This record gives sequence, structure tokens and C-alpha cells, in this order.
Amino acid sequence: MTKVNDLEVGYDVPALPGMNEADIQTPCLVIDLDALERNITKMGQFAKEMGVRHRVHGKMHKSVDIAFLQEKLGDSCGVCCQKVSEAEVFARGGIKDVLVSNQVREPAKIDRLARLPKLGARILVCVDDLENVAELAAAVNKHDTQIECLVEIDCGAGRCGVSEGQPVVDIAKAISATPGLTFSGIQAYQGAMQHMENYQERKEKIDIAVGMVARTIDMLKAEGLECDIVGGGGTGSYYFEGNSGVFNELQCGSYAFMDADYQRIHDEKGERISEFENSLFILTSVMSHTKADKAICDAGLKAQSVDSGLPYIFGRDDVEYIKCSDEHGVISDVNGALKINEKLKLVPGHCDPTCNVHDYYVGVRNGKVETLWPVSARGKAY
Amino acid sequence: MTKVNDLEVGYDVPALPGMNEADIQTPCLVIDLDALERNITKMGQFAKEMGVRHRVHGKMHKSVDIAFLQEKLGDSCGVCCQKVSEAEVFARGGIKDVLVSNQVREPAKIDRLARLPKLGARILVCVDDLENVAELAAAVNKHDTQIECLVEIDCGAGRCGVSEGQPVVDIAKAISATPGLTFSGIQAYQGAMQHMENYQERKEKIDIAVGMVARTIDMLKAEGLECDIVGGGGTGSYYFEGNSGVFNELQCGSYAFMDADYQRIHDEKGERISEFENSLFILTSVMSHTKADKAICDAGLKAQSVDSGLPYIFGRDDVEYIKCSDEHGVISDVNGALKINEKLKLVPGHCDPTCNVHDYYVGVRNGKVETLWPVSARGKAY
Repeated sequence: MTKVNDLEVGYDVPALPGMNEADIQTPCLVIDLDALERNITKMGQFAKEMGVRHRVHGKMHKSVDIAFLQEKLGDSCGVCCQKVSEAEVFARGGIKDVLVSNQVREPAKIDRLARLPKLGARILVCVDDLENVAELAAAVNKHDTQIECLVEIDCGAGRCGVSEGQPVVDIAKAISATPGLTFSGIQAYQGAMQHMENYQERKEKIDIAVGMVARTIDMLKAEGLECDIVGGGGTGSYYFEGNSGVFNELQCGSYAFMDADYQRIHDEKGERISEFENSLFILTSVMSHTKADKAICDAGLKAQSVDSGLPYIFGRDDVEYIKCSDEHGVISDVNGALKINEKLKLVPGHCDPTCNVHDYYVGVRNGKVETLWPVSARGKAY
Repeated sequence: MTKVNDLEVGYDVPALPGMNEADIQTPCLVIDLDALERNITKMGQFAKEMGVRHRVHGKMHKSVDIAFLQEKLGDSCGVCCQKVSEAEVFARGGIKDVLVSNQVREPAKIDRLARLPKLGARILVCVDDLENVAELAAAVNKHDTQIECLVEIDCGAGRCGVSEGQPVVDIAKAISATPGLTFSGIQAYQGAMQHMENYQERKEKIDIAVGMVARTIDMLKAEGLECDIVGGGGTGSYYFEGNSGVFNELQCGSYAFMDADYQRIHDEKGERISEFENSLFILTSVMSHTKADKAICDAGLKAQSVDSGLPYIFGRDDVEYIKCSDEHGVISDVNGALKINEKLKLVPGHCDPTCNVHDYYVGVRNGKVETLWPVSARGKAY
């Protein structure tokens, strides 16, 4: 039993700083800290070269520690997230600029949002309905706070957001005329194209989105409304928005960790995009091997989300993760290469919902556990 | 801000006892307590009528509170679970009979398992490898404890477990000859057939499994080895094992909550099995409705697992959950029936991994929040 500060390895946490990588208990999330730092630094440089800000998407990692690292190494201007409870975690954790890149409509949640600026943070939220303006206004007036609003355009994702043009102008004018609220710009995230493999298809989708946003900005200007923020872009598209001359704030998340799904997309030459490294892994152990050609590992559906496909095994061509059940993964091991207790690193199919089932990130460097970061906003869905 | 005992509704918990059901913050898990109690009582009666014990599967709900309710209303003889960390939660929570229905191979985990009987609980584990017998023996001798072992037969699931017959006998003899370990019987869960829709196909798979187990029991008897426990069976098969005359302990989990996947299976007459009710729901709110025929709700991939398909909307034929992204659900609403903030109850596609992303169950009766149960072993994967 390794017990430090009353944390028992295994029961409470998968590992503790100072331990050897080999002693980490599985399954758990492991971060290659060198790779993470390189990814963060690189995206910071890209944004700088393109002359845009980068507001990192905290809904991906849900970690205050990583958000601070992105500020330090990647010069991020703030965080975006999708839920009020996530914004509460980031603002309470000391992040000073937090955008809820989503709509907030429940009265209790609006009340919580309106209290957040009291923590000393700039708080922004998205709006896609005129009625929401009055709801937000009542709450900020009650709490004597200020909230900034972005009007969301549905530029192809088919979820929240109004159509380009007049509907945006109508809401922006209402916000602008409301004490306690500030109209700060446009939210335009094309979520439906991020994972399209073909570069040209992705570009066509973004060109359409950029056109919608540009026309809307012109209409807003004609009404005297300036956009401090024109935000959008993800790991599959940031170079389009960043070079568009229209967007000025990126919102990338997955680039920091990468996952199997984002690794399937291709660059302009039809090759796999490789500017970011895998830094996040599900560490798993072989726990049964009663069939000659199949091994069973301890990472199943409760250690990951398979909505975007199965994980692949990092650095191994001889074995393949072929089936996922609640508690187990089945690994094809035709050469019988795997031994009981052998550890494997899985690259998750989709990092966001995978991070959301774990309580900790085990940060590893040079074979040692260097840090243990809580997934600070894990389960913060409401 | 509702704050009770320092718990803030929204930030810490989705609801608190005494609140109206209408004030629960979403998305979260809601339990219809009446339906849950009826399911538990009914399964207890079934087991009694069939003359078998019921060791409820705690890996489904991961809740100490529900395990105790199953003991009280369903006369369960104990709990099974899949991970040492889950067993720790149940044993520390006061459950006195806990089977880890899985293999434990990592040295640190074996050590943790061997310490568990000191909490006053009967602890059992599955074995499918002769080498594991010596590993377990060393740990129980170190801690001066006793562990009971079931030899696992792979009776069709294709995961852990040895083949029927001699491999089982070999391991059973080794266990029986080892101080500190007790041979207590056979684990034979046919996980691969539970969700087959056709009754006859399910029956054929179980008949094969029952045959394997019966032949193995005979061989064990010939060696003077008696099986105190012959365990297996799930929500899709319990009536087969329970009436087999071979199994004496069921291990059902999902029956207590039910999910969309288990509701797809048919009974002998080719009809949907309906002996258990939906008692678990993902409560979600409509948060955007900018398209006439589609509403957006706040329950996406971080509020559920969609590995076994999308959720359906309980009690509504006019609207359909058609798409799930990280943070949102898209609901087809061709009649424009849904209003902003309207609450819907989703029946999860697969309850086990859905429960594993939530921290709490909100227990509801007669329109009021009656209880708030932690998902005690949430995230306990190691």
C-alpha cells in the first residue's frame, strides 16, 4: 500500500508523483508531458504567425492545470467551455477569461453564470435567441455584474446558433441596448467538418462559414456594432479560420492531446496531418490470455468512449485492439507476443468524452510520474 | 443559489432532497424510485421461485445505496463487481459478501484484494490461470487473510476464462491445495448472448453454456471438489440459468434500471420482454430551438455512452433523439412541440457506462427529490 497525504494508490488515485511509470495502476489516463508541451507551444506559434488569438477549449481536457500550461507555453488568451459548471471550475481555479461557447437557458444556470464575474474573471456567453437577452439581463442586474455576449451563427454544425445576417444583427442590437450586457462579437464554430478526412472538403465547408461570418460582420458594422471577438476553429480547421482575415480568435481543444479520429484527417497533399503528437494515452494492462491469439486487457467502455471508433495501440504493429466491452478490451495477438501484466498505451478514438470518465491525468516524463492532475471539471455537465 | 451542508446545487450536485422534480439541474441521472423498487422486488421473487440465490451485479450501478436496497427488497446474497477498486468501495461501504467476477493480476491490485477481508467481508475472485493461484496465495499469506476463488469458464463470451473440463479441474485442485485460498465453485457468464433479440437463439447459447458447466461439475465431483457457487446469468438470460438445475447463483445488473438495448430483446412469444420497468433516465433540457423541426438538448456524449445506440425519449412518440455530439443532443421535433427549458427523460442505450459518467443519482418520487445517492464507485476502474 502506497499512501501519501492519505491518498491510497489504487483506491484513490492511479499513481503518485515520484513513482516509476511501471508502477502506475491501470486503466488510467497517462500524459506524455514532453509531447503535450510541444503541442501547446506549437499551436501558440501557429496562432502568433497567423496573427490571431487562441482561446483554448477547456471542454476537451477539463483541467485547470492544463489551461494554465496553455497560457504559459501557448500564450492562450483565455478558455472556452460548454457548461456553466465548467466555467465555475475554471473561474474558481483562477482562469481570468472564460467563454461559455454555448447557450445557457435554465434560470438557475443563468443565475450561476451571472454570479461568476464576482470571482474576478471576464465571463462571456453565446446567445441564439432574443428572449435569452432579457433573461441574462435580469440576472446580471440582480447580481450587479457584467457579462459579454457573442451571437452564435450556425455555420454548418446544425446545432445551436441562428442564421447569418439579420437574425444576428437583431440579437446583437438587443444585447447592445441592454445594461449589464456587452455585445462582443460572433461565435461561429463549424463542428460538422472538423473530422472530414479530405482537406478540400473541409476547406469548402469553412469557406462557406467564413462567407456567412464576413457578410454578417459587414451588416453589424453598418449598424455601428463592432466585433471584438470573431471566434471559431478547431483542430481540424484552425489554419482556415486563422488565415481567413475574418476570424480573430481560435478555439482549439484536441490538438493538445490528439486522438485516433483527428489523426484520420488529411492535409492538403492528401497525407495524414502530423503537426501534433499523441500526448494522451489510456494505459492498460493485459489481464487474461487464455486464447493463443487473443489477449484481454483491463480498459473497456468504462475507461473510454468509443463513439468515434476503437482506440489503437501506440507503437505496436503486431497487436490490435479489436473489441470493447464494459470492462475489457479484446486484443488480437496472433503471434502470442503479449504477456500477463504487460502494459499498452491506447490512443483513444475520441479524447473529449474519454477524459470525462477519468478523475486524473498521470503526467509522465523520462519514465517517472512527474505530476497528477485532477480532471478538474470531470462530470461537470450541468 | 441553493446551498445545503455546503453543497451547491448546480456546481456540486444536480439536486438536493426536498426539491421539486422541476428544479433539478440537467443533464443528470434520475431514478424513478417506485419503479426501481418494483424491479428489485420482482427479481428477488423470481430468484426465490427458481430456488437460486441472487448476487446482484454492482458494476452496473456502482452504488452502495442501491446494493443495500437490493439486499433489503430483493434478498440478494451479496454483490459482484469487476474491479478491485469497486470491491473496495462495496466492502468499505458495508457490503459483507463481494465477488470480483474478473481476474486480478497486477501485484499491487492482488495486494489490495488480499487486504479486503480485514474489513469483515467475504471476498471472492475469479481465476483463469494456474500462475494466478500462487500470486493470490502469496498475498493472502502476507496479510493473513482468506480469499475464495471461482474458476472462470469461458462459456461463449470470448473474453476471460478457461475451457470447460480439465483446465478448470487443474486450477480448482491447485486452489484447493493452497492454504489461504478456498475453491468455491465456477463462474460462467455468457456475456455474448445477453443482447440477442431472439429468445430461441439466446436459449441455444445458454444450453451450450449449461452443458459445459454441468460436465465440469461432474469432473470436479469425481476429484472430490464441490461447487458452493455456480454463478452466472444476466438480465437477458437469468430465467435460463435459474431454471437449469445447474446454476445456483444469478448475477443480474441491468434489470434494476433497464436500458434501450435490453428492451430490444424478445421473450418466448417473440414479444418485447417487459417484466422490468425503466427506472433510470437521463434528464435533459431543451436549450436551443433555432430550427423549426429540430430542438437541441443539453445531454450529449458527456452525459451518456452511445456504444449500444442512441437513447430514446421516454413517454413521447412525437419527438426523437436523432444525433449525439459531445455536449448536445439533436432532437427531431417535426411538430415544433418542444419549448426552451422543457425537460425530457432519455432512456439510455446502455446503462452501465452511462452511470459511470455521472456522480449522482437523483431519486424521485411523487414529483419530489427524495434522495441523492452518490455513484459510489464511479470511475473506479483500477
